[in-house]
Amino acid sequence: MKTTTINLDIPSLHEAYRSGDLTPATVISHLLERARKFADHNIWIHLATEQELAPYLERLQGTGPDQLPLYGVPFAVKDNIDVAGMPTTAACEAYRYQPAQHAAVVEALVNAGAIPLGKTNLDQFATGLVGTRSPEPWGPCGNSFDPDYISGGSSSGSAVATALGLVSFALGTDTAGSGRVPAGFNNLIGLKPTLGRLSVRGVVPACQSLDCVSLFARSADQAASVLSVASRSDDGDPWQRPLPVGRRPVSGHFRFGVPRPDQLDFDGEEGARRLFEKSIADLEAIGGISVRVDFQPFLDAARLLYEGPWVAERYLATSPLIQERPEALLDVTRSIISQGALASAAEAFAARYRLQQLKQSADQVWREVDIMVTPTTPTIYTRAQVREEPLARNSRLGTYTNFMNLLDYSAVAVPSGFLENGLPLGCTLFAPAFQDESLLALASRLHPRATDRVGALADPLVSAEPTATDGTIDVLVCG
Amino acid sequence: MKTTTINLDIPSLHEAYRSGDLTPATVISHLLERARKFADHNIWIHLATEQELAPYLERLQGTGPDQLPLYGVPFAVKDNIDVAGMPTTAACEAYRYQPAQHAAVVEALVNAGAIPLGKTNLDQFATGLVGTRSPEPWGPCGNSFDPDYISGGSSSGSAVATALGLVSFALGTDTAGSGRVPAGFNNLIGLKPTLGRLSVRGVVPACQSLDCVSLFARSADQAASVLSVASRSDDGDPWQRPLPVGRRPVSGHFRFGVPRPDQLDFDGEEGARRLFEKSIADLEAIGGISVRVDFQPFLDAARLLYEGPWVAERYLATSPLIQERPEALLDVTRSIISQGALASAAEAFAARYRLQQLKQSADQVWREVDIMVTPTTPTIYTRAQVREEPLARNSRLGTYTNFMNLLDYSAVAVPSGFLENGLPLGCTLFAPAFQDESLLALASRLHPRATDRVGALADPLVSAEPTATDGTIDVLVCG
Repeated sequence: MKTTTINLDIPSLHEAYRSGDLTPATVISHLLERARKFADHNIWIHLATEQELAPYLERLQGTGPDQLPLYGVPFAVKDNIDVAGMPTTAACEAYRYQPAQHAAVVEALVNAGAIPLGKTNLDQFATGLVGTRSPEPWGPCGNSFDPDYISGGSSSGSAVATALGLVSFALGTDTAGSGRVPAGFNNLIGLKPTLGRLSVRGVVPACQSLDCVSLFARSADQAASVLSVASRSDDGDPWQRPLPVGRRPVSGHFRFGVPRPDQLDFDGEEGARRLFEKSIADLEAIGGISVRVDFQPFLDAARLLYEGPWVAERYLATSPLIQERPEALLDVTRSIISQGALASAAEAFAARYRLQQLKQSADQVWREVDIMVTPTTPTIYTRAQVREEPLARNSRLGTYTNFMNLLDYSAVAVPSGFLENGLPLGCTLFAPAFQDESLLALASRLHPRATDRVGALADPLVSAEPTATDGTIDVLVCG
Repeated sequence: MKTTTINLDIPSLHEAYRSGDLTPATVISHLLERARKFADHNIWIHLATEQELAPYLERLQGTGPDQLPLYGVPFAVKDNIDVAGMPTTAACEAYRYQPAQHAAVVEALVNAGAIPLGKTNLDQFATGLVGTRSPEPWGPCGNSFDPDYISGGSSSGSAVATALGLVSFALGTDTAGSGRVPAGFNNLIGLKPTLGRLSVRGVVPACQSLDCVSLFARSADQAASVLSVASRSDDGDPWQRPLPVGRRPVSGHFRFGVPRPDQLDFDGEEGARRLFEKSIADLEAIGGISVRVDFQPFLDAARLLYEGPWVAERYLATSPLIQERPEALLDVTRSIISQGALASAAEAFAARYRLQQLKQSADQVWREVDIMVTPTTPTIYTRAQVREEPLARNSRLGTYTNFMNLLDYSAVAVPSGFLENGLPLGCTLFAPAFQDESLLALASRLHPRATDRVGALADPLVSAEPTATDGTIDVLVCG
């Protein structure tokens, strides 16, 4: 575990700002220096300079944590999300541009007082779950616990920056699992919000119909705080959806679904199975009633994401670059995305029909349970293992994540504990659309049962509420 | 106007059944005989025999209107919706099959006591808005007022059967306007329900992602009665959507949007313009406040339906027939549908992005108004006029209807009155998804201001409630 001299929990930072023990300027200065210590992790595509950050600090003058909910809170931004004045590359040098405006989500956070420390490494064009698909000069992003292990991707740098205490939270994106897999591999909370909750204006599209901005956080409560600031209606984003009205409090014990044992894949790692069983026991300990459910429709939907026509969206997102300068992309990325040029519109609609059927089957589960829980990934791999089988192992990492946006669910990745090799794994709680806050509330009770530390740090986990066992959760009613 | 000896309004039929003046058997017998009188209209692809209908009558024994809400109510079914024991053809002989089961909606109606009099003519594979695209032996369906005029399509036979007093109501389908255009041309109420409200199980798909079952009715109140019976959750239909919860009563005067004058197209028919202006005045008379709105996003979305990749859905729906036996389709139908084989998945997604943007623009209107009103069609044509320009005039008929399902709205076509040539036209009220009942409630107040007759009949319009002017409507809250 790595030690920090400044605790970056938002309440802790704000306390230090109020007492005068710290100022945003000293925190930023400290963090920029600290960031350089972890250069071998390849976290940043663009780490801001003190000069670049000066205007953010100036804006905070005369205000404080009582005026601005994220006053002086440092955060990292995945390099497929625009920060005005910093380049956006999507980990592809030929794609580089200098945005004049913040992405809508960045703007909301900055307006609330947060400070963007820089742009983080990612699997090129957010295509991958490994964190190793970033070309030179950036290179693969190393896990916060051990750089020989993969960080998870595609939001690799954002997770590792948070886990190493370089920022209080970070923005990722999540189409196939990019916001959850790196959370699992770096002992963090990873919120994949409901599609259309956070604006995607100013975000480089991957699959535009399935993309969302995700959050890496030190605790579920802090994820909820950031979500409430970031979640603003945006007329400039055609994918925004209104929040449904009505909330159904589920009184008494909640019911959670678990895939049947024969439908669980840990890629042979018994330690991963034990951690998942521990998460189930923890959920029961906080009032949950476990129900075994048929997971096949979810697994079938997951396969559609890369085997179906949705790859055409990635092709659209990288055109005309991929047509005119194919060599500008990594071989592995180009070979995946270029498949997207081949499918017909008829195939696209046929796949949508298949998805519609699978969603109907999958949705049956909500008659039986309030939430579902799965491992976040089957297991974790070393960078060497991924080099051996770059496609198969990447694909296997999406087993429990690829279906989520296709089926229109909300999800939170929660730490589960550690393997014998010291690497962390996580579980994922998911529910229908717009249950983001309900899931975070449950995650905040589950999280401290798995670990008492944040990320790869010695920092103690701050649990906002006592671990209650009344077993009630609020469920938003959408229909 | 044609006279009937039996009034087919549902309350009137039930009164006659209760008093013993009529029995379902005498009604059916009378209607089968009456149907033969209108053979030159080409209404039926399959008119049931007394033998086929005997089991439906037997089922009613020992029950009555108090037990079954549609006891002994005759209805017609568009021939792309399955009725067990009757053939389904979609107006294509080579496509003919004999379904073993009712479509879900038919089943619900039959269980409520309704009797399917037969299967009605349509534009082949529901591709058209004219009602003339039906091959021999069926041929073009003639308007109920004057067979030289088009009936409107694609649900031509269902509308004409209702307007000529052969049934109390009828089922159509509506992808591009097929449930609204024929209602307008035959002086009927035409409900295009929210997508996913009525099950499409047992319906021949046109564009599966945009298809819905529609209702032709003699009054808005009767449409609401049939909707409440037909609207049942169906696990066998992947397109079903749950009803949102919550209802927002709009107190005081309601606001309705009208396209800007330069965005209204009547194809030069001044009588059509006058009828639409009369509908606006009628809406104001019942408490509405008119607001001129920019209609361009709606018009742009309308064009996507046939110019965009959604035609690929029609291609999928008619494959493999269109590939293996292209001559089995009408030339005009084949030439439209075969375009659907050409588009790529990337084009399909790009069009979806465009639609998403247009929907966001169009949806701005709901901040200003509670409902929108447009003409149902620019004008009406003779069959000869459609023969002259079969594609252009068909296309023009969709001006105010093609966008509706793409933008996910609910809509009701309401009679507006009559042109100097005696032919009727209508206006369409529309609103966001799931406002079906609100729109019908408003339609029931608007309808009697335009006409005091039902369809092409001398039957007086039954208005369930006095024409109130309190100007309140209920709006379902979905977000």
